[in-house]
Amino acid sequence: MTNFEFYSPTKVIFGKDVVSMLGQEAKEFGGKALLLYGHESIRKNGLYDLIVKQCADAGIELVEHSGVSPNPVLSHASEGVRIAREAGVEFIIAAGGGSVIDESKVISAGTANDAPLWDLVSRKAPVEKALPIVAIQTLPATSSETNQVGVLTNKETNEKFSIKSPLLVPAKAFLDPQLTFTIPKKYSAYACFDIMSHMLEGYFTMTADFAPAHEGFVEGLSGAVKISLDRILKDPEDYEARANVMWVAMLAWNGIAKAGLEGAALPNHMLEHPLSAVYDVAHGAGLTIVFPAWLEYRKKEIGGRILRFGEKILGMDGLADLSEEAAVDKVIAAFREWLSSIGCPLTMREAGVENPDIGELVKQALTLCEFWGIKGYSADDLEAIYRLCL
Amino acid sequence: MTNFEFYSPTKVIFGKDVVSMLGQEAKEFGGKALLLYGHESIRKNGLYDLIVKQCADAGIELVEHSGVSPNPVLSHASEGVRIAREAGVEFIIAAGGGSVIDESKVISAGTANDAPLWDLVSRKAPVEKALPIVAIQTLPATSSETNQVGVLTNKETNEKFSIKSPLLVPAKAFLDPQLTFTIPKKYSAYACFDIMSHMLEGYFTMTADFAPAHEGFVEGLSGAVKISLDRILKDPEDYEARANVMWVAMLAWNGIAKAGLEGAALPNHMLEHPLSAVYDVAHGAGLTIVFPAWLEYRKKEIGGRILRFGEKILGMDGLADLSEEAAVDKVIAAFREWLSSIGCPLTMREAGVENPDIGELVKQALTLCEFWGIKGYSADDLEAIYRLCL
Repeated sequence: MTNFEFYSPTKVIFGKDVVSMLGQEAKEFGGKALLLYGHESIRKNGLYDLIVKQCADAGIELVEHSGVSPNPVLSHASEGVRIAREAGVEFIIAAGGGSVIDESKVISAGTANDAPLWDLVSRKAPVEKALPIVAIQTLPATSSETNQVGVLTNKETNEKFSIKSPLLVPAKAFLDPQLTFTIPKKYSAYACFDIMSHMLEGYFTMTADFAPAHEGFVEGLSGAVKISLDRILKDPEDYEARANVMWVAMLAWNGIAKAGLEGAALPNHMLEHPLSAVYDVAHGAGLTIVFPAWLEYRKKEIGGRILRFGEKILGMDGLADLSEEAAVDKVIAAFREWLSSIGCPLTMREAGVENPDIGELVKQALTLCEFWGIKGYSADDLEAIYRLCL
Repeated sequence: MTNFEFYSPTKVIFGKDVVSMLGQEAKEFGGKALLLYGHESIRKNGLYDLIVKQCADAGIELVEHSGVSPNPVLSHASEGVRIAREAGVEFIIAAGGGSVIDESKVISAGTANDAPLWDLVSRKAPVEKALPIVAIQTLPATSSETNQVGVLTNKETNEKFSIKSPLLVPAKAFLDPQLTFTIPKKYSAYACFDIMSHMLEGYFTMTADFAPAHEGFVEGLSGAVKISLDRILKDPEDYEARANVMWVAMLAWNGIAKAGLEGAALPNHMLEHPLSAVYDVAHGAGLTIVFPAWLEYRKKEIGGRILRFGEKILGMDGLADLSEEAAVDKVIAAFREWLSSIGCPLTMREAGVENPDIGELVKQALTLCEFWGIKGYSADDLEAIYRLCL
């Protein structure tokens, strides 16, 4: 294991109807908050009314900023900073999925620091102060509710970067699995694969030859997501299945899965970000497109790991009876088949992208390689992988 | 899943030589600290000198309180409170195993609050304030470095209780696997089983019929400890194996394993505490005595779970070919065989307790049942289980 720091100080309040404790839990942060959310969904499911009532009862004045998009953008975050400063809010309540919580981090940093917003996001300027964030997660996937990272797209330049600071970890997170009942089946599947991919990135890229804690964690929790998704696709209001997914989503990307993991990198996230930045593909769907393609491209180097994935996570047997090459191909085929069976796209075409500008995708991926310190991918490599996604 | 809160705000600093960052990380807590430790071991391995130098360089004055015992006792903690108050220390540096970190929590609460110390430990008086704790873990087992709990024995009454408060979670924890190289093989095995038992308690007592996240977590990480221990018993200076154990120890008892787990209880810890309180049996060794006996006693009710344990954690196969009764007995026998093979006692006699006062053990266990809210154990049940431990 390499040296690392693990710091996830969020107070997680998990379970049925926990948002009814919002007022008493949030008032310590002040009397005026920015309420950040997306569009209509929190109004439809009653969450909006509950937040407003909780804050009114606790004497917290709310200033609203709605309209966060699934891939949050710089212009909307800038507007949030303007509103937050003008109103003098003391903290932020972020009610929504990872996109809303991600953007709340950008607004928190932007409001508290003088540096230009894109400089904070692209890490040219440091985050020295922050407004506290209270997160109410409605689309569990990114663990944004307990981690330091917020992803944001600059539409002018089509760049997708991520702000990062220990100051930006939400102070409190409310996780009520009931709030996820209305996530459509398709997006439930995307989110579940996003959760799994957060763990699988390190699993497939690590170079350590002894990492049983990591392997046990990833295999155990990825399997749990897969089993739970089966139940959710049958009954979207299965509380226990939704609760297991919501809890694993938090654990999968709060820092545990990659802690001390030698060689771990995020090539699939690196490949996916340009897809969602340029073509507005949902992040989870972008991942189901690039992940099998990346495995295909890397199968000669990580065949043993792919076989273990097939056995431990996909639950395959009989692989030992085949040649390694045939067994690896069988696992990748089974992986694709499973992703298809849960309603996820396997190609850009299936995601509605007919004639992608591969040059632009490669260009952006190269920028991310540098930004995230991912080594070993030339433009030719990236082009070859994107061509496997057509 | 039942509703729960998860809060583990410790900044964990993990890896080779991390204690060389102690000064810079600790000075934010003030200029005077109580250094709490056990006996000679931190002097022998150089940790003591390193702490002294780090604190001197950072301008932190140290007041020492050594001699914490493996099962820390009230009288020593009271003396620590007296010293801490007299010197006016601002925080505590706890360098040692779970016992030292546990006692540091008691001293922290005792110094900052006016209530009698035993009232704080036995939860008759609330912990309203606390001194910050910086923990340097040298015997990973209890995750005391990241949780709210500190166990303490009152030798006058032979009671063993635990203080608990979110204010007592250490602010920072230094985990250097190299500091665990000198743990004797026997104690390494005790500690590893203690770590596993923290996860297995919930695994065997939960009543939920769908808990894949919990099962995956426990099976994955228990298996990791078992694999790592095999390597440690061959080579106590195997860094990777020690690192995996140290990391899992933290994860196993920081709140994740029992979060939301319906019906989860700690019957084996309840059965063990009187053993170590009355006969000074090492906690981990006490657990290897009571756990198989408890399984034996409960095997009719939790047979299916015992079979899963055999397959997923002990790695047994062929169980499906036997009757359930025979298969369960086979798993318990294999469990005992494994514990023996790693050098752990299976009976009180093997731990040097020849003629235990079972009445006293039962009496204390009943008190703990009430204190911890564990239901379903009459005096007859407890006596029967202790008799299986003779």
